[in-house]
Amino acid sequence: MSEVTKTLARFIVNHRSSDVPEKVRHEAARSFLNWVGCAVGAARHETVENALAALAPFSGPREATVLGRGEKLDVMLAALMNGITSHTFDFDDTHLKTVIHPSGPVASAILALSERNHLNGNDFLHAFLLGVEAECRIGNSVYPQHYDVGWHITGTTGVFGAAAAAGRLLGLTEQQMTWALGIAATQSSGMREMFGTMCKPFHPGNAAKNGLLAALLAQKNFTSSLQGIEAKRGFANVLSTAFKPGEITDRLGETWEISLNTYKPFACGIVIHPAIDGCVQLRNEHKLKADDVEGVELKVHPLVLELTGKKTPQVGLEGKFSVYHSSAAAIIYGAAGESEYSDAVVRDPKVIALRDKVTASVDRSMHEDQVHVTIRLKGGGTLEKRVEHAVGSLARPMSDVDLEAKFKGLCKGILSDAETAKLIGLCWDIGKLKEAAEVARASVPAGKVRAAR
Amino acid sequence: MSEVTKTLARFIVNHRSSDVPEKVRHEAARSFLNWVGCAVGAARHETVENALAALAPFSGPREATVLGRGEKLDVMLAALMNGITSHTFDFDDTHLKTVIHPSGPVASAILALSERNHLNGNDFLHAFLLGVEAECRIGNSVYPQHYDVGWHITGTTGVFGAAAAAGRLLGLTEQQMTWALGIAATQSSGMREMFGTMCKPFHPGNAAKNGLLAALLAQKNFTSSLQGIEAKRGFANVLSTAFKPGEITDRLGETWEISLNTYKPFACGIVIHPAIDGCVQLRNEHKLKADDVEGVELKVHPLVLELTGKKTPQVGLEGKFSVYHSSAAAIIYGAAGESEYSDAVVRDPKVIALRDKVTASVDRSMHEDQVHVTIRLKGGGTLEKRVEHAVGSLARPMSDVDLEAKFKGLCKGILSDAETAKLIGLCWDIGKLKEAAEVARASVPAGKVRAAR
Repeated sequence: MSEVTKTLARFIVNHRSSDVPEKVRHEAARSFLNWVGCAVGAARHETVENALAALAPFSGPREATVLGRGEKLDVMLAALMNGITSHTFDFDDTHLKTVIHPSGPVASAILALSERNHLNGNDFLHAFLLGVEAECRIGNSVYPQHYDVGWHITGTTGVFGAAAAAGRLLGLTEQQMTWALGIAATQSSGMREMFGTMCKPFHPGNAAKNGLLAALLAQKNFTSSLQGIEAKRGFANVLSTAFKPGEITDRLGETWEISLNTYKPFACGIVIHPAIDGCVQLRNEHKLKADDVEGVELKVHPLVLELTGKKTPQVGLEGKFSVYHSSAAAIIYGAAGESEYSDAVVRDPKVIALRDKVTASVDRSMHEDQVHVTIRLKGGGTLEKRVEHAVGSLARPMSDVDLEAKFKGLCKGILSDAETAKLIGLCWDIGKLKEAAEVARASVPAGKVRAAR
Repeated sequence: MSEVTKTLARFIVNHRSSDVPEKVRHEAARSFLNWVGCAVGAARHETVENALAALAPFSGPREATVLGRGEKLDVMLAALMNGITSHTFDFDDTHLKTVIHPSGPVASAILALSERNHLNGNDFLHAFLLGVEAECRIGNSVYPQHYDVGWHITGTTGVFGAAAAAGRLLGLTEQQMTWALGIAATQSSGMREMFGTMCKPFHPGNAAKNGLLAALLAQKNFTSSLQGIEAKRGFANVLSTAFKPGEITDRLGETWEISLNTYKPFACGIVIHPAIDGCVQLRNEHKLKADDVEGVELKVHPLVLELTGKKTPQVGLEGKFSVYHSSAAAIIYGAAGESEYSDAVVRDPKVIALRDKVTASVDRSMHEDQVHVTIRLKGGGTLEKRVEHAVGSLARPMSDVDLEAKFKGLCKGILSDAETAKLIGLCWDIGKLKEAAEVARASVPAGKVRAAR
């Protein structure tokens, strides 16, 4: 156990991009495409408007683009903003083993760095993969105990992923990479208490910014522990009650965590997806209307109530943490996209009336991807649906075409159809681009580029 | 317990500076003076040189001074650098109840902000006091369990202090201040594993920078939890195994934690001070020389070995975490200032020879301020010294004159005697200055100002 951080650093520094299987590269492109869509989609959200109003006046050299907008900021602030927007809708990718949202911290950090340093798409995609690998393996080593303590694992492990990927692109030595992981470790932060506030999307943004900072410091020989992950007073022991170091060091380069990545069809916490899926299926199969419903009973995995048990959400963002609102919206609208989590829908008396008829109870025999939905009808009788794997799960993944459709939906109202089509093409081609930052530039609507100049 | 964060926020926002007792204001000035001296003293240290090399290229508007140097940086980077330098020598102030170094995170954040916003010294000193109060009370509420888990409490609580003080100077509302404390909570970080590396002084710097960020975000209504400190998944429960909320909310405005602040006569971890004090006393009383010593036996508080048990330090920075090196240096030089922790002294064969004769054992009946030193002499016989309260402790505080002498020693080689004398005067007068940042400008040696222009 004494060489965990060094072993991981050595792998990140020395791995060759030619050793990445094509299928893994494609999954990385899928993750990246989904990430760009989420970031563009939330580019005008109040969360990022407020953050920009606060911090843009302090920007250094404006070398990196805020996706979907005209502004450029210094690389660390751009990393922060893109990390924020990409998680604002809670619609980004999920590593189901750990509920980490892997792309946000890593892609946000290195797309900004790539724009500054004119890095090519192949190096970008490789570094992205390595960052996600570091982040998810560290997550695997402490999950679920670390999460159970109350840490928002996307923030706490994301900072390692961002440091690893940025450090790779900066050409750090093994020792510098070990320091970078140590500097990341000692910034690891973000608590689940923040769910339902602007601080939740702040976490991946902050992880991106701080991971990039760690790599930049290490590049100039700012020293840190060489055992930042595994030491007695290091990350794993301080931030978790259990640690499996082999999850970090075993079979490095043989397995790829990005192969376990998934993409959400619904714009909310992943643990509610089975319930939404079940409600949408019953609605569509039975042409169900809100007025037909006497009551909705959900049997769910324990995390559903722990994470999304808000009975009376007041604003859209809180609706994403309410299995009750989500199920009601699913029955009324047959969907749970961003618009079903608007303030207006969350406050709609019709939605509230149905929401109040939804009850949920924990069934400890359920795994996280399951739900059992029972709908009692006013006219008598019940409808039942047991979902074994929610749509969007590893067992029922979104196809490339599904991902493109989701991307188009996210970009609507921000980019023109032609701009969206071009951006989709660049995302699929990310591994071949002469400059990875072509994607960043193409994410800005034409009018905004003019405005920013 | 449900209103801890809000109660603290309300106090910080509403407290009147005219209600601060004069004695408390003077202690704040003492803390500030000591902090400025430490920051100037380390202004040319490799730690800050490396950090500047890494991050200065990313600076935004250069509105705030790095103490003791010519550079100006944006307020957040300046806060980071001054937080780093002020803790690099491990010579800054200590709130003994919690081993927090209170001034670094708070003063670094708000001196930078004051320079940008041309704030006066009275407001500065008041905000400084309130920030230290928030930081130390939060520390009291989770100490010692939080520290025992492995957190570097100066980093984890410093971010609250910086947010509170900066938020006060930004004129936040109660709700915004509550958010600022929440944004601080979710950035709380820094682990004890980093002791002996550049990441230790990074912690107060990072806390200053991140606390300032929290206040700036809250000012633009970036939302957070309203219970960032006390919630089930908030700071106290996630980062500690015990929590006493009354330590935060009881008697606010009636007691002042800065009254419990202390200043170090020795440039190392506070827990070794009794041992150094005992060794220096025996040396001076008996005109002891290294060659006379057969062995040195220390009976110490458990934290001494846990924090400073490095048997064979290789570099100066590690020497600060070695009770063995420190005791040897105390006997040979009769001092433990910055020069006794140089690489050269740590590697000096004469020092190493005596260091190897020092043993230390835990005596659980000792409090943290005690030590029992036994020196066996080559010629036979033993010398003994029991220290009840080390010099620099609350029971034997450094006088104002002592603090000035320490300040002069720190500034030697960086400022001229006249510059040092002027700077001391400004520090004592901080509460009356038209602009608090006069101190920052006066900390820069004349030649450096010209170079930077």
